[in-house]
Amino acid sequence: MKDVKQTCLLAKEHARAIALASEEDMNAMLRAAAAALRARAAYIIAENGKDMQALTRGPQFADRLMLDEKRIDGIAKGLEKLIELPCPVGEVLEKRTLYNGLLLQRVRVPLGVLGIIYEARPNVTADAIGLAIKSGNAIVLRGSKDAICSNVAVCTVIKDAIRGAGFDPEFIQLIEDTSREGASAFMRMNGIVDVLIPRGGASLIQNAVQNATVPVIETGTGNCHVYFEKSADPEKALPILLNAKTQRISVCNACESLLMDEQYAAAHLRETVLALQAAGVDIVACEKCRALLPSLPAAGEEDYYAEYLAMKISVKIVSGVDEAVAHINKYGTHHSDAIVTEDEAAAEKFLREVDSAAVYVNASTRFTDGFEFGLGAEMGISTQKLHARGPMGLRELTSYNYRIRGNGQVRG
Amino acid sequence: MKDVKQTCLLAKEHARAIALASEEDMNAMLRAAAAALRARAAYIIAENGKDMQALTRGPQFADRLMLDEKRIDGIAKGLEKLIELPCPVGEVLEKRTLYNGLLLQRVRVPLGVLGIIYEARPNVTADAIGLAIKSGNAIVLRGSKDAICSNVAVCTVIKDAIRGAGFDPEFIQLIEDTSREGASAFMRMNGIVDVLIPRGGASLIQNAVQNATVPVIETGTGNCHVYFEKSADPEKALPILLNAKTQRISVCNACESLLMDEQYAAAHLRETVLALQAAGVDIVACEKCRALLPSLPAAGEEDYYAEYLAMKISVKIVSGVDEAVAHINKYGTHHSDAIVTEDEAAAEKFLREVDSAAVYVNASTRFTDGFEFGLGAEMGISTQKLHARGPMGLRELTSYNYRIRGNGQVRG
Repeated sequence: MKDVKQTCLLAKEHARAIALASEEDMNAMLRAAAAALRARAAYIIAENGKDMQALTRGPQFADRLMLDEKRIDGIAKGLEKLIELPCPVGEVLEKRTLYNGLLLQRVRVPLGVLGIIYEARPNVTADAIGLAIKSGNAIVLRGSKDAICSNVAVCTVIKDAIRGAGFDPEFIQLIEDTSREGASAFMRMNGIVDVLIPRGGASLIQNAVQNATVPVIETGTGNCHVYFEKSADPEKALPILLNAKTQRISVCNACESLLMDEQYAAAHLRETVLALQAAGVDIVACEKCRALLPSLPAAGEEDYYAEYLAMKISVKIVSGVDEAVAHINKYGTHHSDAIVTEDEAAAEKFLREVDSAAVYVNASTRFTDGFEFGLGAEMGISTQKLHARGPMGLRELTSYNYRIRGNGQVRG
Repeated sequence: MKDVKQTCLLAKEHARAIALASEEDMNAMLRAAAAALRARAAYIIAENGKDMQALTRGPQFADRLMLDEKRIDGIAKGLEKLIELPCPVGEVLEKRTLYNGLLLQRVRVPLGVLGIIYEARPNVTADAIGLAIKSGNAIVLRGSKDAICSNVAVCTVIKDAIRGAGFDPEFIQLIEDTSREGASAFMRMNGIVDVLIPRGGASLIQNAVQNATVPVIETGTGNCHVYFEKSADPEKALPILLNAKTQRISVCNACESLLMDEQYAAAHLRETVLALQAAGVDIVACEKCRALLPSLPAAGEEDYYAEYLAMKISVKIVSGVDEAVAHINKYGTHHSDAIVTEDEAAAEKFLREVDSAAVYVNASTRFTDGFEFGLGAEMGISTQKLHARGPMGLRELTSYNYRIRGNGQVRG
């Protein structure tokens, strides 16, 4: 087994080749990889079976880990979709002539070596490799021990396919050392790995944030709000809330907290609560809500900070947009927050003042997603402000450099 | 003395106010600060005198630390220059209508709370505050113990001026605890400080990279190359080399290594060496150079990695552009590298393949600078690829968010 540093160095050694590859070659790699995944599905399923047999964790984990023909076809389709997306590398972002005649261009370039650390979801292996190819990046993957046979299989099939298509696939590297020490070493591969993107639960992400010396893009945590402003149209408000809360509860853009203007609450709190309860959502509520509906259980301070990822919501009455914005900026995770309103000034104020990656007027928070935003792909949703915010597609996996042409200029 | 966390929290509490300030208000703050620095120069100079007296380090440090009327006027002018620069906040970077009618805008917003950690240069205190104001960011400054009286004085004068102009200046915070533990605590203010920018020598920067959990922008290290390609015009080559090597030796964009095509060397090595020696530059050279000029001392592997920041250069003969590019990508620090050539294909290849923040054709590496690039200001030069690369101006101190307007859309 190669050690973690050797694995990362191997990716780095091959990073310039993929960075300089033509879009045509990138697409040929993606096409070959997709075809090979389908052609060798039986092998991948057999290797995945070994992981499934060894798995000691619950059915939720098994469902994420499991691969069958249909899922492998879905993964292959994901790679084929990338073929249609334009490669971001080489885009001229800026072009200026400086005072001294120097011609300056700012050009989009790959980040270099991406590091991905993730849980037992073998589809991420293929997705991340596809995004790396089309953004011109080398990639080092470190998946979970629970998925090691599946990951090795997926990676082998893709690398064999790329080799078969006439390219060197060594810009793709999988860390086979799935120990905790291996993960720690990976997070400290400064100067070799250019960015570390953790994909998974809160503990994985916090481990990366706390221990990595490689620059990290934090992803994933979402304590999202829907705010019914006093002019909200109930015909829009309720469907938006139910969609944001219940359409998929385990995801980071699901709603965890409902804020309601006091005037709106006076007229509509009861129907809102009944609709949530009818949908199976448990409610905890502020004292003002409980004054109107005493049967509601009380919300504690910790509820306003909570990312439930469950059929549960906190409900709080606020005096107006200012209090709603202040609450969201204080308790939220700066992910996705929505206002429902018919008042243009309230909408503008909310859009401007809420400090979140995605801020919505009259739409569900569930739209925060690379595919929904038209990026065509997604490496995760950044919850930090540095480098990328919100859904990360191909563009967010690039950097830029300055290219300057002169005719002998020196600095005075 | 407030502790580090309290100080950072205070900045964060006031971050939304400066983020939402109008450009007019930002300019009023800058104007007031510049005027106050001049008006209270005597107080600042007196406080600076205390630092100067306590200083036990050498004359190089004293020169950086010293403030007089002229320097304070220069600092004030720097703030006034920012008034002319457009505020980047609010710029609409993208505007699209999605398949479902959602109107999506991507809008530039401040990063939030900047953390700056720096050495005994009190001018950085004012420069960084000015950049924070005009980019809508709160700022926490942690200067060196050697400059604490100067930093407190500069900060006090600026904050008093902002208060006097009718604004709350508490988005500006200076950490008065200059202990090592204070610095470590500052670097771990995750969730409070949005980015940490270390400005100073290699050990300061490495300390931040190794210990920070706050996202860091690495700055400063530059092992820069000038490459004389075989078609290089000697009339351009020599002035570019001398400028890059000798115009200012202590800076990150100074040249540390000369690469020379073997054909060019056969004709021009001797005159190049003589010119470098006449300028007072010590040379270490590769074996091929020493075959032509045996009196040159030999360069070791470590020389090719070295950032001398001194009147010293390594010289190496290469077989062509490919070897030059490979050498630069291996030994360099991806900062600034130049080719001198009259061959368009060689220039194109070099621009495309050298993996550095700034790549030059027929110009000195010394131009890598926020002012030279027309950014109007500079917070440092990033040597990482994440978020910002090369000189960082106001734009590089921003992030963006998505603002989405709908009329009741929910996700299917």
